[in-house]
Amino acid sequence: MTVYRAAIPKGTRDILPGQFARRQYIFNSIRNVFTLYGYKPIETPAMEFLSTLTGKYGEEGERLIFKILNSGDFLSGVDAKLYQSQDTKDLARQICEKALRYDLTVPFARFVVQHQNEIHFPFKRYQIQPVWRADRPQKGRYREFFQCDIDVIGSHDLFNEAELLKISDEIFKKLNININLKINNRKILSGITEVLGIAENFTDITVALDKLDKIGWEKVKNELLQKNIPHQAIDKLAEIVKISASNEQKMEYLKDLLKNSETGSKGISEISDVLQYLKNMKVEAPVVFDITLARGLNYYTGAIFEITSRDVAIGSISGGGRYDDLTSIFGMKDISGVGISYGAERIYDVMDKLQLFPPELDCFSTILLVNMGKAELSYVLPLSHDLRKNGISVEVFPDNAKLKKQMNYAHKNNIPFVIIAGKDEMLNNTLTIKNMVSGSQEQIANNTDQIIDFIKKVT
Amino acid sequence: MTVYRAAIPKGTRDILPGQFARRQYIFNSIRNVFTLYGYKPIETPAMEFLSTLTGKYGEEGERLIFKILNSGDFLSGVDAKLYQSQDTKDLARQICEKALRYDLTVPFARFVVQHQNEIHFPFKRYQIQPVWRADRPQKGRYREFFQCDIDVIGSHDLFNEAELLKISDEIFKKLNININLKINNRKILSGITEVLGIAENFTDITVALDKLDKIGWEKVKNELLQKNIPHQAIDKLAEIVKISASNEQKMEYLKDLLKNSETGSKGISEISDVLQYLKNMKVEAPVVFDITLARGLNYYTGAIFEITSRDVAIGSISGGGRYDDLTSIFGMKDISGVGISYGAERIYDVMDKLQLFPPELDCFSTILLVNMGKAELSYVLPLSHDLRKNGISVEVFPDNAKLKKQMNYAHKNNIPFVIIAGKDEMLNNTLTIKNMVSGSQEQIANNTDQIIDFIKKVT
Repeated sequence: MTVYRAAIPKGTRDILPGQFARRQYIFNSIRNVFTLYGYKPIETPAMEFLSTLTGKYGEEGERLIFKILNSGDFLSGVDAKLYQSQDTKDLARQICEKALRYDLTVPFARFVVQHQNEIHFPFKRYQIQPVWRADRPQKGRYREFFQCDIDVIGSHDLFNEAELLKISDEIFKKLNININLKINNRKILSGITEVLGIAENFTDITVALDKLDKIGWEKVKNELLQKNIPHQAIDKLAEIVKISASNEQKMEYLKDLLKNSETGSKGISEISDVLQYLKNMKVEAPVVFDITLARGLNYYTGAIFEITSRDVAIGSISGGGRYDDLTSIFGMKDISGVGISYGAERIYDVMDKLQLFPPELDCFSTILLVNMGKAELSYVLPLSHDLRKNGISVEVFPDNAKLKKQMNYAHKNNIPFVIIAGKDEMLNNTLTIKNMVSGSQEQIANNTDQIIDFIKKVT
Repeated sequence: MTVYRAAIPKGTRDILPGQFARRQYIFNSIRNVFTLYGYKPIETPAMEFLSTLTGKYGEEGERLIFKILNSGDFLSGVDAKLYQSQDTKDLARQICEKALRYDLTVPFARFVVQHQNEIHFPFKRYQIQPVWRADRPQKGRYREFFQCDIDVIGSHDLFNEAELLKISDEIFKKLNININLKINNRKILSGITEVLGIAENFTDITVALDKLDKIGWEKVKNELLQKNIPHQAIDKLAEIVKISASNEQKMEYLKDLLKNSETGSKGISEISDVLQYLKNMKVEAPVVFDITLARGLNYYTGAIFEITSRDVAIGSISGGGRYDDLTSIFGMKDISGVGISYGAERIYDVMDKLQLFPPELDCFSTILLVNMGKAELSYVLPLSHDLRKNGISVEVFPDNAKLKKQMNYAHKNNIPFVIIAGKDEMLNNTLTIKNMVSGSQEQIANNTDQIIDFIKKVT
C-alpha cells in the first residue's frame, strides 16, 4: 500500500478545537453586533465564474485567483494553436471556467444584480465566509482566510459610512481591542491627482500609496517614478503625505489645496459629514483622517476606511469603503454600495498576542462519565441523558479502559468534573463525583439535581 | 464596458437571508446535540493535496473531484510527451496539485495523523463544512453542499456506534423529523460474499447494492452479471436481499447462513451488541436491520448506518459507519474510526416540505427607526443604542426618504415595529410606535423601558 504524507497545501491550516472556539468567539461577537444593527445574513458559493472575478482586483490581485480545472475532458474545445503556443494565461481561461472567490464584495455585487427582485433596497447584508488567494504565505497571511463583511447597497447617504464605523467601534469594544479608525475619501485622492496634473495616474497613485505603511515613502516614490510621474508632482505629493496635523488642520489645508477641484472639494465635504455623524453616534475610538490611506482595490469611489490595533503592529484588521459602480459590471446601474470587511485571522492574532481570549474556550465537556463496564454503564446512562436535558455537556468514555487512563483523558481535555460509578456505588445507589481542578471528591446520591448542585458550588 | 451576466456555476447556490436562517436552525440544532455529547469542533482547509483524496472514493467518486489549477506557470515541469498526448487524466495530475475536498472523512483521517500529538484519543470531533462534487446537478443534489460529521477515532467499542445513533435520534426529535435508523455491517456483507464463493467481488457487490433503492433489483442484477458473477450466486443473493422479516428473524436466518464464516458471524454479533446498547440508551426511532444496506464508499469495514425520513421519500438524510484502516494510508496503523454524516440540504428539503421551520426565521430586525432628517435622527439615535444594549435589534433607515417608502421597507422585511419621531414628537419628547402586524399605534414617552413594554405586550 502506498503511504501518503499527512500534509496540507502551503498557506492553508487545520483548525483545532481550541482554535475553533477562539475563532467562533470572534465570529459570534461580530455577528451579534451585525444582527443588532439589522444586517441580514447571506452566503455565496465558493466557486464563481472566472469571468465574474476577472478585471476587479487589479493586475496583482488577478494573478492570485485560484482557478478550477473544468471537469471531464477539459481539453475539448481548446484552440489547437493556443495549446501549441503553451500561453498559460490564455490557456487557463479556456480550461478553467470557474475560480475560488477572492473577496466577498464582488460576489455580493453579482448577488445583488442576480437577486434584485428577491431583495429590498436599501439592502443591508452581512456575510462571513472564507476567501482564497494564491499569495505568498507568511506570518499572519494565509491562502484561505475568513472575511466578515457588512455592506449596504442602494443608499447614497453618508449615514451608512458612519454606521459602519459605529459598528466597528462596538465590535472592538466587545473584543477589548483598542483601535484607531482611519478614514479618507477616494474623491480627495482624485482631487489631489487632479491639482497635481497627474489625474491619469490615479490608479498608480492609489496602488503605490496603499503600500506606504509597509514599504515606506522612498520605495513608493521609486514605484511612482517608474510610472513616469513627473518629479515635481511626486515632490508635492510627498509634502501632502507627510503632513502631521489634527483632522481639522488637515481639512483646512486640503480645502485650500483642492479649492479648484470639484471632486476633491466634494470629498472633503463628505469626510466632514461623516465626522459629524460619528459625533452624534458617540463613537469612542479615535477617528483619524489619514490622507495617505488609499486601499489597494480598484472599485472604491468615495469614503475609504481602515482599522488598526493601537497595541499590536500587524497592519489593518478591517478595511472598506464606498463603491459606486460595482453592480453596473453585471448590468445594474446607479446602485451605490458601501461596506467594511473584518479580517478574522488578524483579529485572532491581535487577541492572542494580548491574551484577550477567555480561558474557558479550552473547555468543551463539563462532565466525563467513567466507563467501568457494561452493567455500570447501564446504571449511569439514564443520568447522562438527564444532565444533557439540563444543558450540561456530558461525555461517556467509550471503552472500559483503566481508571487512570480515563482520568488522564479528562485531565488532558480540561474536563472539570468526573463521575465514577462502580459496583459499590451501584449497591448504594450513589455516585462518586470528582472536581478535577481542586481534586476534591464526594459520594452523592444518583440524582441529577445533586450533581447540578455540586457543579454550581464550584462555578 | 463589458457587461457580465450575473450568474453562478451550475449546481451551486446563493443563500438568501430566509434560507440562511433556516439552514442555521438546522446547523444549530445539530451542533447543540454534538456539544452536549462532548464532541469537539475542528475545521480543515477547502483545498487538500489531490494525492490525499485520490483512491479513496471509488472510480465513480474519483471523477467527481474538483481540481485546482497550479498557480503561475502551471505548464513548467509538465512532461513534453504527455502534453502532446493530451491524456487529460494524467495531465490533470501534473497541472493540479490541489483539489477541493470531496467529503469530511478522508480529510479528517489525514488531520488525525497530522495532529496525532496535539489531540487525545479517543478523539471525538464534529465538523460542519461544505464539500464539492462535480456530480450532475438535479433536484436536491448540488455541487457544493454541507456535511455535518461526527466521528470517534481511537476506540473499538460498539458503544460508539450506538451513541452515534442515539445522537441521531435526539437531533431528529429536535427537528421534528420522523426517521428510520437503518443499520447493517460490512462484515455480514463480506460473510455473504464468502459463503456464496464470490469474496473477490466484495466491492462490486457493495457498489451495486448501494444503488438498490434507486434503480431496483433488476438493474443491480445486470450490473453484477456484467462483473461476471455466477448466476447461481446472484440468485442466492436475490433471496437474501428480498427477505422481509423482523430484525430478530433476519439475525436468526443469517446466523445459520453464515455459521461457517468467521467474519460474517462477527458481523452478526456486532449488530446484536449495538441493538442491546440502543435499548439501554432508550433510542425511540425504529431501528431497522437492513441486509441490503451497503454504502457506496470503499473505506467502511464494520457497522454501517443510514437514516431516512418516514414522511418524505428523498433517499438517505444521514449515513456513516466504521472504518478500521483509513488512517493507515497516511502512515498511522491500528486506529479504528466510526462516524456519521448529516446532509444539511436533504434535511432542509424534508423540513421545507413538511413545513417544520418556525415562521420567525423570516424576521431579522425587531424595530425600524424611520429617518425624518438629520435633526430627527439625532433625537432618536441615542435610543437606538439603548435598545441594542437591551438585545433588541434596531435598524435605522439610512435615507431621509418618503414615509411611505420607509413603511413599505418595514413591511417587506417583516419588521414588526416601527418608530417614528418627527418635529411634533421632538417637541413633546415622545415617540410614535406602530405595530406593523395589528396596525395599532401609540404615542409614548421617548424612553427605552416604555418601548420594551410596548413590544412585550405583543410578543
